[in-house]
Amino acid sequence: VTERVVVIGGDAAGGSAVSQVKRARGDEVDVVMVERGRWTSYSACGIPYWIAGDVDGPQALVARSPQVHRANGIDVLVGTEAVEVDLDCAVVDVRGPDGQTDELGFDQLMIATGATPVRPDIPGIDAQGIFGIQTLADGASVVDALSEQRPLVNAVVVGGGYIGIEMAEAMLRRGLNVTVLDQAPEPMPTLDPDMGRLVREAMNGMGIDVQRAQVEGFEADASGRVRAVLADGQEHEVDIVILGLGVRPESSLAQSAGLCLGESGGIRTDERMMVEDSAVFAAGDCVESFDRVSKSWVHVALGTHANKQGRVAGINLAGGQATFPGIVRTAVSKVCDLEIARTGLREVDARQAGLDCEVVTIESSTRAGYFPGSTPMTVKMLAAAGSGRMLGAQIIGREGAAKRVDVCAMALWTEMTVYELMQTDLSYAPPFSPVWDPVQVAARVLSAKLAER
Amino acid sequence: VTERVVVIGGDAAGGSAVSQVKRARGDEVDVVMVERGRWTSYSACGIPYWIAGDVDGPQALVARSPQVHRANGIDVLVGTEAVEVDLDCAVVDVRGPDGQTDELGFDQLMIATGATPVRPDIPGIDAQGIFGIQTLADGASVVDALSEQRPLVNAVVVGGGYIGIEMAEAMLRRGLNVTVLDQAPEPMPTLDPDMGRLVREAMNGMGIDVQRAQVEGFEADASGRVRAVLADGQEHEVDIVILGLGVRPESSLAQSAGLCLGESGGIRTDERMMVEDSAVFAAGDCVESFDRVSKSWVHVALGTHANKQGRVAGINLAGGQATFPGIVRTAVSKVCDLEIARTGLREVDARQAGLDCEVVTIESSTRAGYFPGSTPMTVKMLAAAGSGRMLGAQIIGREGAAKRVDVCAMALWTEMTVYELMQTDLSYAPPFSPVWDPVQVAARVLSAKLAER
Repeated sequence: VTERVVVIGGDAAGGSAVSQVKRARGDEVDVVMVERGRWTSYSACGIPYWIAGDVDGPQALVARSPQVHRANGIDVLVGTEAVEVDLDCAVVDVRGPDGQTDELGFDQLMIATGATPVRPDIPGIDAQGIFGIQTLADGASVVDALSEQRPLVNAVVVGGGYIGIEMAEAMLRRGLNVTVLDQAPEPMPTLDPDMGRLVREAMNGMGIDVQRAQVEGFEADASGRVRAVLADGQEHEVDIVILGLGVRPESSLAQSAGLCLGESGGIRTDERMMVEDSAVFAAGDCVESFDRVSKSWVHVALGTHANKQGRVAGINLAGGQATFPGIVRTAVSKVCDLEIARTGLREVDARQAGLDCEVVTIESSTRAGYFPGSTPMTVKMLAAAGSGRMLGAQIIGREGAAKRVDVCAMALWTEMTVYELMQTDLSYAPPFSPVWDPVQVAARVLSAKLAER
Repeated sequence: VTERVVVIGGDAAGGSAVSQVKRARGDEVDVVMVERGRWTSYSACGIPYWIAGDVDGPQALVARSPQVHRANGIDVLVGTEAVEVDLDCAVVDVRGPDGQTDELGFDQLMIATGATPVRPDIPGIDAQGIFGIQTLADGASVVDALSEQRPLVNAVVVGGGYIGIEMAEAMLRRGLNVTVLDQAPEPMPTLDPDMGRLVREAMNGMGIDVQRAQVEGFEADASGRVRAVLADGQEHEVDIVILGLGVRPESSLAQSAGLCLGESGGIRTDERMMVEDSAVFAAGDCVESFDRVSKSWVHVALGTHANKQGRVAGINLAGGQATFPGIVRTAVSKVCDLEIARTGLREVDARQAGLDCEVVTIESSTRAGYFPGSTPMTVKMLAAAGSGRMLGAQIIGREGAAKRVDVCAMALWTEMTVYELMQTDLSYAPPFSPVWDPVQVAARVLSAKLAER
């Protein structure tokens, strides 16, 4: 009989893996991909832009549909949930769209079950009109809600992280009054608070009301539809609520199969994306990644990691050799025209870890100061006091600001000092950069500060 | 008597150096900066944008005027040419604005004499209406010519390099018919010809006529004004000619002083920007830089290098310690909305050097394919066959494409392989990048090609 590879989860990681396996081994293997939802290989990151109206969803967000995967020779089971994995017997129990259960034997297994949005257990959370943003079905629900005859006036976004700010933009652009509630002092908790403050001020300037508040519950009207958010004793009237409280690794299936989880709750794998102490592969939002800067395991749910990890898992599943060398926690987002990026450690992380470091925050511009379209940008950067090694950077600005974080990510990746970063040969011409790139201005000022110690 | 530091040349390198010296040593030193022109510390790179009308010149292009330098305690002699340097007597002979000569003794000397535009010795080159683009005075001459009552209709740009394409854009945007003549098969000779072809096709699409032709001479009318360009036996009627044939290091003063020049004609310095076998410093467009990729000395006239080198020279002049670690030949430019970038070796360089390498050219997009404003971009990348080490990259695209070359420059700087580059943690969100950054797509395809060997 032909060898069978079963992949649980059909989004970025699973989809990348099955493509690799099929490409490498063709008809030598049966590849079965089990997907709970209707769609495969889609861009969850695109959902806020679909809701905002930038993108025609959901089809545009689907990179490879089940049909495309099938045309590539993958056996795709949609609407099918993997309910149990028996590693000893090498069997996955699945429940299909009409509720029937089945046993799926495997020679090789990969788990790519993704992540689940955090949904706090507070009164009224199950009222209609409260939406998480995770799957294309979630996106469709919000688009439907916004298309109802009853006009929606007030939106509350709970949580000021990536999904929170992106959905705040989406709601604003759909014409709603938008309030973002977050229990942290400033939005964007993956930034230092001083940079988060800049985000809050900019969002307030866009007409988004960002408030520090702890959400205590939701009130519904007689029809069961959310009508108010209760937060810090205040009542916010709402027509729609978006939950943007982050995600947790969806690792329960792996856990009940006895597979190794890390402290973050994500599945712990080695560099080959093989789960520790097993022959199972795992990749994507359900696994932990190794943070090369803090030398610790962290859960970072990002499509780009899922794609890279899925590719690595797929190559190894097919008998090849590939490794995923970890991450440096680079992330980028925007709210309207405000671009936000970060990589490495924040100042709060470095202080908490007891690292002796220097920190600077500089103002520069995206282009030569005299060039049309040049806009101010802020770079915060930190470096280790002894070695001068760059530890992290955060960038806030307008068009052209955020992608510069990639240079900082490369510096972190290679453990470069800020002295060296300042001297690297980055591209310069007036339409693209000041004569010192803003990242190098930060590195230069930081170098001077380190030299003064 | 107070120690005297004399710096010959008051643009990017000289201006950066004197600022460093004055900041570090204050009243302990007299700092004299000798500048041939009227302006100091200006952005020559901005001149095409001034002519195009993007920038109000020339003041906007001046970062630090002579007045500003003087307010910082620098003695600035404008309109003053250094005609001879006597190292044994530690004296510079200068000729001032009214022709009087003077001797300027020094304790320390720095040469920052910049570069001179190539001006071929062909018939008619001295006709009126033929302009080089180097100094703010050149820029003012072109702006004046364009403001004359007689409307200018036809412009010929001789040379299809950086200044050539930038001036082609400027002339086009001033409403002229523009022809670019270059003897090379394709414009942008710092790219491989296959990438240059994309530039030519795009420029033709913008209405700029790019032709391969050798310019043989110019014809003037009775008043001495250029009226035709003769190239490959053809006569092109013109009202204005722009020379964009590149620059040569202006190292004749250094040479006659007996200082060491390299094969490129640029002054050869060590990492401290001290001229070999001397106690003189030199920096900017008049020096050679060490190319970390080819391990050879090259002349690359760029404001960003001049600034960095000038800073290093200034710190060392002031008794500090700084080094300039070389370049990787990163450059960026644009013609209208077409962005062009390069770093490291071209394929032709690698072949010429007899390197065994693999090359790929990939198409990707600046943002997620479904995101509004996503535009196609082309990345060409090469890597050494044995090690997989990245050797160079070229990028052509629209808004947001070119600055990605900085990631390639960082990879070159750190001698990274394409296998590793493919896995680095670059920022991803749909408005900023596909899930695999185009640079990583190129690295991935190149890795696969290397693996097939």
